[in-house]
Amino acid sequence: MNCFQKEIVISEKTRGFHLVTEEVLRQIPELRNFSAGIFFLFIQHTSASLSINENADPDVRHDMESYFNRSVPENAPYFEHMTEGSDDMPSHIKSSLLGSSISIPVTNGRLNLGTWQGIYLCEHRNRGGRRHLVATIMGERTHK
Amino acid sequence: MNCFQKEIVISEKTRGFHLVTEEVLRQIPELRNFSAGIFFLFIQHTSASLSINENADPDVRHDMESYFNRSVPENAPYFEHMTEGSDDMPSHIKSSLLGSSISIPVTNGRLNLGTWQGIYLCEHRNRGGRRHLVATIMGERTHK
Amino acid sequence: MNCFQKEIVISEKTRGFHLVTEEVLRQIPELRNFSAGIFFLFIQHTSASLSINENADPDVRHDMESYFNRSVPENAPYFEHMTEGSDDMPSHIKSSLLGSSISIPVTNGRLNLGTWQGIYLCEHRNRGGRRHLVATIMGERTHK
Repeated sequence: MNCFQKEIVISEKTRGFHLVTEEVLRQIPELRNFSAGIFFLFIQHTSASLSINENADPDVRHDMESYFNRSVPENAPYFEHMTEGSDDMPSHIKSSLLGSSISIPVTNGRLNLGTWQGIYLCEHRNRGGRRHLVATIMGERTHK
Repeated sequence: MNCFQKEIVISEKTRGFHLVTEEVLRQIPELRNFSAGIFFLFIQHTSASLSINENADPDVRHDMESYFNRSVPENAPYFEHMTEGSDDMPSHIKSSLLGSSISIPVTNGRLNLGTWQGIYLCEHRNRGGRRHLVATIMGERTHK
Repeated sequence: MNCFQKEIVISEKTRGFHLVTEEVLRQIPELRNFSAGIFFLFIQHTSASLSINENADPDVRHDMESYFNRSVPENAPYFEHMTEGSDDMPSHIKSSLLGSSISIPVTNGRLNLGTWQGIYLCEHRNRGGRRHLVATIMGERTHK
């Protein structure tokens, strides 16, 4: 078995849910060297998160943003952590709800996702800037 | 270290939270070959999810379904993704809230779960059909 | 590649969100032996959970507890699982929302967390007692 690890960057996104499968895969061509294993993606921030969801209709990403904005309100009267802006504390909560990492099986050099699955970067800040991720692949190497 | 991977199928379930520990374990007898490692289970769908929760009282699964149906309503007036049925967009949201994968330690050939823990398949669609999963085990093999 | 696994205990915490990065790291000095890999932490309970979030301002942890108590109410009229106390069913729901495990990249013998990230133990019971966790590290060993 082998382990490959690389720090990657995702370009700045607007607040909302973004399909980033291609932007991620472009940066890890080494995936093709693994015949079976797991791809781990970890985001080194507490106000953005990673998820796996529908890769076709942009309305799904729009509705996800609408839902989470209603489910986790800004300026809740009981919030005490307010100094970094009204979008900051909701971002922390959304980050824990959605999670800082995803794990996807790797099979024959490719992510073994379902037909309709893609990788989401969930940007919870109004201006989150570039986001730093750590990609790790562990598994059996392809026989050459 | 070794990596074992297998695609498995979970039979069609009604909408709700289902304890599937046995249905999963039946399909991966290879687990017994690992002395220490991690068992990864991934669901290749965006309208069902995996979780770990209480394995004893069926009321817990009932209450989970009741909670998530109230927390993520159907026919929210702000939803735009409506063409696939009123249960579709809530299913995507629940899928991201609960997650597409679980990771469980493997110790001495068994899942090292707590006494009260089991694997849940969370079926969010009214008619989700059979669900496809990818099971991956990575770790040290048992000495024979 | 190597796999290291150890069961650890986290001392009893009050209900709420607690930063436990140091309490965890103290118990796994073996982390320094891994040059690249993944650290898996799994909690063997269904009424407490693990998350990664902001490690600086205690108000964030306070607001997380306030939010989840409002988002997942006690004594909801539709709950059927009530025999173990009013804090029990909400604990199961919070446990599935936040998750039973976290995965963090390991790089050069250390957790490769972002500057502001720490490990949270989320205690959802009024009196949860000590919590049992399984730590697993898989990856390449440091060359000595």
